[in-house]
Amino acid sequence: MLNAVGREIPEELNGRKLKPYNGPFSFRPKGRLHPPPLKAVFPGETKLLSSIKEAIKKAGLENGMTVSFHHHLRNGDYVVNMVVDTIAKMGIKDIKLAPTALFPVHEKLIEHIKNGVITAIEGSLNGPLGEYVSRHGLKEPVVLRSHGGRARAVRSGDLHIDVAFIAASMADEYGNCNGMLGKSAFGAMGFAYADAMHADNVIVITDNLQPYPVTPISIPQIYVDYVVEVESIGDPSGIQTGTMRITRSPARLNIAKNVVKFLATAGIIKDGFSFQAGAGGISLAVTKFLHEYMKKNGIVGDFVMGGITGFVVDMLRDGTIKKILDGQSFDLRAVESLTKDEGHVEVSHIMFGDPHSCGCVVNRQHACFLGATEVDLEFNVNVNTHSDGLLLHGIGGHQDAAAGSDVTIITIPLLRGRVPVIRKEVTTVSTPCHTVDVVVTDRGIAINPEREDLIEAVKGKMEIVDIEELYKKAKSLVGEPKPPKFDKEIVAIVEYRDGTVLDVIRKVKE
Amino acid sequence: MLNAVGREIPEELNGRKLKPYNGPFSFRPKGRLHPPPLKAVFPGETKLLSSIKEAIKKAGLENGMTVSFHHHLRNGDYVVNMVVDTIAKMGIKDIKLAPTALFPVHEKLIEHIKNGVITAIEGSLNGPLGEYVSRHGLKEPVVLRSHGGRARAVRSGDLHIDVAFIAASMADEYGNCNGMLGKSAFGAMGFAYADAMHADNVIVITDNLQPYPVTPISIPQIYVDYVVEVESIGDPSGIQTGTMRITRSPARLNIAKNVVKFLATAGIIKDGFSFQAGAGGISLAVTKFLHEYMKKNGIVGDFVMGGITGFVVDMLRDGTIKKILDGQSFDLRAVESLTKDEGHVEVSHIMFGDPHSCGCVVNRQHACFLGATEVDLEFNVNVNTHSDGLLLHGIGGHQDAAAGSDVTIITIPLLRGRVPVIRKEVTTVSTPCHTVDVVVTDRGIAINPEREDLIEAVKGKMEIVDIEELYKKAKSLVGEPKPPKFDKEIVAIVEYRDGTVLDVIRKVKE
Repeated sequence: MLNAVGREIPEELNGRKLKPYNGPFSFRPKGRLHPPPLKAVFPGETKLLSSIKEAIKKAGLENGMTVSFHHHLRNGDYVVNMVVDTIAKMGIKDIKLAPTALFPVHEKLIEHIKNGVITAIEGSLNGPLGEYVSRHGLKEPVVLRSHGGRARAVRSGDLHIDVAFIAASMADEYGNCNGMLGKSAFGAMGFAYADAMHADNVIVITDNLQPYPVTPISIPQIYVDYVVEVESIGDPSGIQTGTMRITRSPARLNIAKNVVKFLATAGIIKDGFSFQAGAGGISLAVTKFLHEYMKKNGIVGDFVMGGITGFVVDMLRDGTIKKILDGQSFDLRAVESLTKDEGHVEVSHIMFGDPHSCGCVVNRQHACFLGATEVDLEFNVNVNTHSDGLLLHGIGGHQDAAAGSDVTIITIPLLRGRVPVIRKEVTTVSTPCHTVDVVVTDRGIAINPEREDLIEAVKGKMEIVDIEELYKKAKSLVGEPKPPKFDKEIVAIVEYRDGTVLDVIRKVKE
Repeated sequence: MLNAVGREIPEELNGRKLKPYNGPFSFRPKGRLHPPPLKAVFPGETKLLSSIKEAIKKAGLENGMTVSFHHHLRNGDYVVNMVVDTIAKMGIKDIKLAPTALFPVHEKLIEHIKNGVITAIEGSLNGPLGEYVSRHGLKEPVVLRSHGGRARAVRSGDLHIDVAFIAASMADEYGNCNGMLGKSAFGAMGFAYADAMHADNVIVITDNLQPYPVTPISIPQIYVDYVVEVESIGDPSGIQTGTMRITRSPARLNIAKNVVKFLATAGIIKDGFSFQAGAGGISLAVTKFLHEYMKKNGIVGDFVMGGITGFVVDMLRDGTIKKILDGQSFDLRAVESLTKDEGHVEVSHIMFGDPHSCGCVVNRQHACFLGATEVDLEFNVNVNTHSDGLLLHGIGGHQDAAAGSDVTIITIPLLRGRVPVIRKEVTTVSTPCHTVDVVVTDRGIAINPEREDLIEAVKGKMEIVDIEELYKKAKSLVGEPKPPKFDKEIVAIVEYRDGTVLDVIRKVKE
């Protein structure tokens, strides 16, 4: 079947029926949420266990089951490796891993893929694991989902979790926990909510056990079966990965400036303004320039949703914005602010982006600015694969922010080295053209022709080019890029946030 | 069938199968939670409606459906009457009302019972509505549940809610709301959580619409279908009902002093101590005396769960306790503290007392002190009916606190006027003897013989009497009371918190 972004989607894959993507708001879901089991913990019963192994045993983990993790510690996480090592040592096989995301620090999981402990993954893959999947595939294709899409999948039962492992930088022995305090504090714990609320078993792993009751309570005791104390859940400095530094490239700073200029010219930045801040050097620069612009013009925004950094905290503290909604904290200043600044509140990724809730935060965003590995002439965006076909990134909140925000701006350089970023066709459709409005490059700004309102708003005030022109400019500089070579085997499915399928990713040809 | 407190329970009543109570921890539940429907709210769609009528229409309320309310505004609530009046005007009939509790202010609902708008109630009845039910009955027997038991019933699907109405003193147009701020601020919103999370439709009713996003977020937007602004949701001074004043009676002050003396003598008040504070003049006095005792002896407690009053806030502010877990705020000082004191946090009534969660707060309480209308020689407690048989009170958190706490103390005068409080048999079993440990009266303290540990702990240090002695003492003063006269018709079911049946209440004979 051809889906609404023109991709050929098989009707079935490894026994999984695939529904083709049919537009960002093409249906309202039927049915009910996936209910977790009823439980009972009687007075005097303890949840505190002495080891991860004991917790895995008590939770009844067996061959073929699914375990989940959240990635708030990002590249500093120790918990995924610890747990999977334990599962392997216990002789349990054929596990489906359902992390919200994996990072280079999880490269050693490849050994557990090779030895049959992990045979399926539903979750974002950043770096080596993605590359491994691209080259070898797993027994089942990997399922890639956006943050909101994963929350939806967990809540709807598309992704059933047998055991959820929740890393917490502070917990009590009854399971109340947060990520805001303690030596390994990583901030907001938005990803953990859906898992805690819908998994059959929930195990909190902490390196900071405190007297009952721990507050603030991000995940309450009512969802937690067991608590295990370990020496360390991770290195919180690892949450600040390379993408968390503001760009120093003059060309990219210029892209950021042009984003603000575009929003200002189109009349979008005014009192009540809201946006989603992201990671990545250009997005950080946009946040900084937006801050300067709003401050200078006395404009007060209603909220910023993120992925939160210190740059956003600055806006809150000087009154440029009123509220921060924080699903994950991207640097240690954001972590610190979460417990100190009243207007900075933790929200779940259900609230951030689950399209099958009663409305998520992205729906309320005036603007978002997002990166891309590729954009095509239809305004489809690729964030998953590189132009060599390798799966190297998760979708993140990209699909969600793009679907919800009034204006979705993609910030890209025209070229990365000698690789053009604007393509005739993207290697992978991660976010559909129907939700992408503006592409800001260092060589010009293009507006999706569907957004006549935006074209009208800046007409005569700013130079706008056709995306085809940008494509031609890149081609004149570096020539037409060679398409990557793929095998037939599908190694990953790119789900849209509503559970339909946007694209598939095939094994790269060696 | 005779249940484990010796009450005859019919196997079936109006088509509802009844399971007899079989001990406080006699089974672990099977099955899964009741899942609410999947939803979708697309960007640009509004939830803000112009009237309660419009919201009821959009929610699709029909004859025979169930509507729910929370009672945080207690006797100051305007919302229940407003909504039921609207339902009546719309010509909708045969409604099951599922309030967490009704108060004298809701007396006018009697007219809607008479005219067939309301034909069933599952919820606590305080005052006139209870009396009406006692004298006349409804089409279906009323179901009385504890706070934790109601949360369980909603979560398990025993009590399916078609439309939940949530009064909020602050809300945004997307449904994020709290009860902490605004002219009608009533504090914690613990009762509303289960309803918001499991009802088919959720309508927030507020008198204080604020820009998006409202924080603190007690109920998040993801659960809220519609928002309606009204002039006033209630009079917050009505949350301080008569039971919220400390007793002035020397005899009752003496009861309170003896509770503290007992706990101190038994070695229960030490660092880490935790208790549930309640409403009622004696409970308030206990809190005050506990505070004085702990302060004087340099004892620091871990937490107080409540029903929170200013007396508990005082303990937090001077460091006598570390945390307050607040499911409902019982006076305006508690309301104010909730947004100001870091260690004072809102919790749901799922967390407070749902026995079919992964463990509720009551399980962690060292002590609770609770009132009673009657106690019997087996230590069964009645809080629902008076000795004339009239249903005048809800169960509140009584069953939950008694089941979870290490030591459950009932504080009662030996006589109320010429009515003895200790009975051969209580008129109604509201809380089973298996969870009641100590009875403190103005004429002596009795310990449940099952609690040999407590008897041992105070032996030789405090005078303890047999409960039979207290009973005889009362009888010698006022004679044996006449039992109330009942018809055969069952007008109410007293559920235990786990969904089994403790007792039934019959129509009083006129």
